[in-house]
Amino acid sequence: MNPIEIIRKKRQGGKISKEELRFLFDGYLRGSIPEYQMAAFLMAVYFQKMDFEETNHLTEIMLHSGKVVDLSSIPGIKVDKHSTGGVGDKVSLILAPMVAACGVPVPMISGRGLGHTGGTLDKLESIPGFNTRLTLEEYTAVIRDIGVVMIGQTSEIAPADKRLYALRDVTGTVESIPLISGSIMSKKLAEGIDALVLDIKTGRGAFMQTERDAEQLARTLIAVGVRSGKKTIGLITDMNQPLGYAIGNWLEVRECIDCLRGADVPDLMEVTYALGGLMVYTGGKASSIGEGIRLSRQAVKDGLAWKKFCDLVRRQGGMVDMVEHPERYPSSRYVGEVRSPTSGYVSSIDSLELGFTGIALGAGRMKVDEEIEPKAGIVLKKKIGDKVRSGEVLAVFYTDRENVIHQVAPRIESSYVIRKNRVVPPRMIHSMVDARGRHGWRVKGK
Amino acid sequence: MNPIEIIRKKRQGGKISKEELRFLFDGYLRGSIPEYQMAAFLMAVYFQKMDFEETNHLTEIMLHSGKVVDLSSIPGIKVDKHSTGGVGDKVSLILAPMVAACGVPVPMISGRGLGHTGGTLDKLESIPGFNTRLTLEEYTAVIRDIGVVMIGQTSEIAPADKRLYALRDVTGTVESIPLISGSIMSKKLAEGIDALVLDIKTGRGAFMQTERDAEQLARTLIAVGVRSGKKTIGLITDMNQPLGYAIGNWLEVRECIDCLRGADVPDLMEVTYALGGLMVYTGGKASSIGEGIRLSRQAVKDGLAWKKFCDLVRRQGGMVDMVEHPERYPSSRYVGEVRSPTSGYVSSIDSLELGFTGIALGAGRMKVDEEIEPKAGIVLKKKIGDKVRSGEVLAVFYTDRENVIHQVAPRIESSYVIRKNRVVPPRMIHSMVDARGRHGWRVKGK
Repeated sequence: MNPIEIIRKKRQGGKISKEELRFLFDGYLRGSIPEYQMAAFLMAVYFQKMDFEETNHLTEIMLHSGKVVDLSSIPGIKVDKHSTGGVGDKVSLILAPMVAACGVPVPMISGRGLGHTGGTLDKLESIPGFNTRLTLEEYTAVIRDIGVVMIGQTSEIAPADKRLYALRDVTGTVESIPLISGSIMSKKLAEGIDALVLDIKTGRGAFMQTERDAEQLARTLIAVGVRSGKKTIGLITDMNQPLGYAIGNWLEVRECIDCLRGADVPDLMEVTYALGGLMVYTGGKASSIGEGIRLSRQAVKDGLAWKKFCDLVRRQGGMVDMVEHPERYPSSRYVGEVRSPTSGYVSSIDSLELGFTGIALGAGRMKVDEEIEPKAGIVLKKKIGDKVRSGEVLAVFYTDRENVIHQVAPRIESSYVIRKNRVVPPRMIHSMVDARGRHGWRVKGK
Repeated sequence: MNPIEIIRKKRQGGKISKEELRFLFDGYLRGSIPEYQMAAFLMAVYFQKMDFEETNHLTEIMLHSGKVVDLSSIPGIKVDKHSTGGVGDKVSLILAPMVAACGVPVPMISGRGLGHTGGTLDKLESIPGFNTRLTLEEYTAVIRDIGVVMIGQTSEIAPADKRLYALRDVTGTVESIPLISGSIMSKKLAEGIDALVLDIKTGRGAFMQTERDAEQLARTLIAVGVRSGKKTIGLITDMNQPLGYAIGNWLEVRECIDCLRGADVPDLMEVTYALGGLMVYTGGKASSIGEGIRLSRQAVKDGLAWKKFCDLVRRQGGMVDMVEHPERYPSSRYVGEVRSPTSGYVSSIDSLELGFTGIALGAGRMKVDEEIEPKAGIVLKKKIGDKVRSGEVLAVFYTDRENVIHQVAPRIESSYVIRKNRVVPPRMIHSMVDARGRHGWRVKGK
């Protein structure tokens, strides 16, 4: 086999066989296929795509480049959730302990924030002492003990994906559905899960800005998951404004603490309960998605989800005292309020711009080696549909960086569009996608 | 500037500015832009193309990566020809001395054969002693002395192109009109020419298999040439069967010797005289293309072209005795005849397959470091339109490789399609292309 022939075949829109993909990727990992040939191949894939079968082969090759955790000795159907990421997406921090509290084991391996979206790991690590760098043995022990574990990707999990992602990042080939699918699914399938629930974000603050791309990604991920023998189901959810009110690592943890203790942040909790319903149902602890949602709500209401969260923090070395008393957390040096210049109703919030503003404040990174300031970020006071008076506070920002203060306020203000007429908040859950296709979402389960 | 941004811009079909191209290519040559980013960029260019302006900038960057020869001290309008290459394309060997014999200086820097097409350098080097590796000073001296010179690309000419071509070759990004144009024109513009005549081959044995691609390439090359202040004009010529009868380095030199001494190989000489007409006219030695063709014919008829060829061989160190007595050249160990299994008219000859068969015999190379056997090749006895009887010889092959003999005969036989009905040979010159567009070709000049 010849790598040039394989590149040319894909360039012409041809289908690459499993043997050819294996030859290319094995060679790449061993060093006999150089980076530049892989880069050319990835760009050809960007333009010519891959079908389900090719994507599935790619996933398997990346999955088997590393260890696949075996959690079969742990009773129950192990279910994880994956989100394609968005601004203010802190769902995992509430969802994982909540679903575990319903009796479904949740083994979760998460990533760091990059670009405008945050990462679960950075949020967890804003809790002093919380250790996300467990070995796979420790990971297995934690889920066995408390039914939930949240760690970062180790070098043993899908090392091919790590190398490939680094190459995609510097060659402009990130935004490819088959490559995204291979990357996500190889890591998730390595976790030892039996089922996977997907949260595919769509809208201006998401990687998949159009509903069509979101559905295409969902279908590809589900096809790969099902092909690997895992129950896989997904929701397409709204990311036209940040989820919840907080943007920034500790600020988001604090919002999660409030929610776990019973506060209602409507859009955040609607998505969290819907995903929880899917996970509890898929995990065999409810006879319907609706019942799964009711059990999830009950777990929060009864304080079991909160208790499980504290167990998780404690078990992974975090200061439980700090999550129980979040007011003790150090505060930012600078706090600024952004006020509305006009009266009316909030009609849109540019979450992409707010995500990048959060980075300027210190809450995120544009390059993998940049430092994060866990306290920094933005807390919105108004969201889409809210009535606002001239001079009323739209948002509050927190930072230690004196030099950004003056540019930040106008950026936040310009992220808000305020109209005279009443505005209806966006529907949070657009649809459900499973192996059979896309379905309307009418489940309530209150 | 950020290379990833530039890759993404081209990927999305955007236009790359001269500054961005310079940043990318300068960085690539200096080593600060890695091969994999250039590979991804090239594949994006393959899909999204480049407009005339971008192609022109690319050409200039590659041209100025090395030396630009100054031939202004040599009187006359210096004209070169470039062919996109085809099987049996030995035109340069007749054309260059013929046009020089008409008083137009011809400075020619050629390439080696790669893939199914041959290269002028390999043909010249089959003449014992012929030295194509002159320095640029020697090159200038030879053209000053005898009005014609034929050498290989030196490392001083467009070094960026050399590196880029090597990368394109291994990343499946050769077949891109803007990249081909930049590669051709940067080398040609560095030769010190005032004008350029193009021979764009089209048909099954050419890189540009369709007339549309050939015209697109011609227009791009002409636009870049004219933009650089060089008269540039081209012919689109037929490559649906090998040009002339001989395929293989010395075999082709021998055919050229015959033609320079007055033999008529109709398709080969029709193309050679047409290109000669364009060169003599562009070089200011004829008042029309038709007159240029008549002068070219006269130069062959009078023996001046043959004399110039011998001068060239002598001046560049070749054994003139051998070209004057080609029968003294050593002969191949194995000679085989391929006979027609049927009677009829030759309706097509697969020149791509014959080109690859020539490589198997030793006449070419698939990799740049492969050895060539100068004596090896094929001499056709029948061409499209020829009547053939069952058992009559279609072609003769020459090789020193015993192990290929048995596979070669059936390959050559299957390259011929023989039909019952009379067949009209293909028109050799499809059209002429200049800065104003494409024109019919009705010039005769007999």
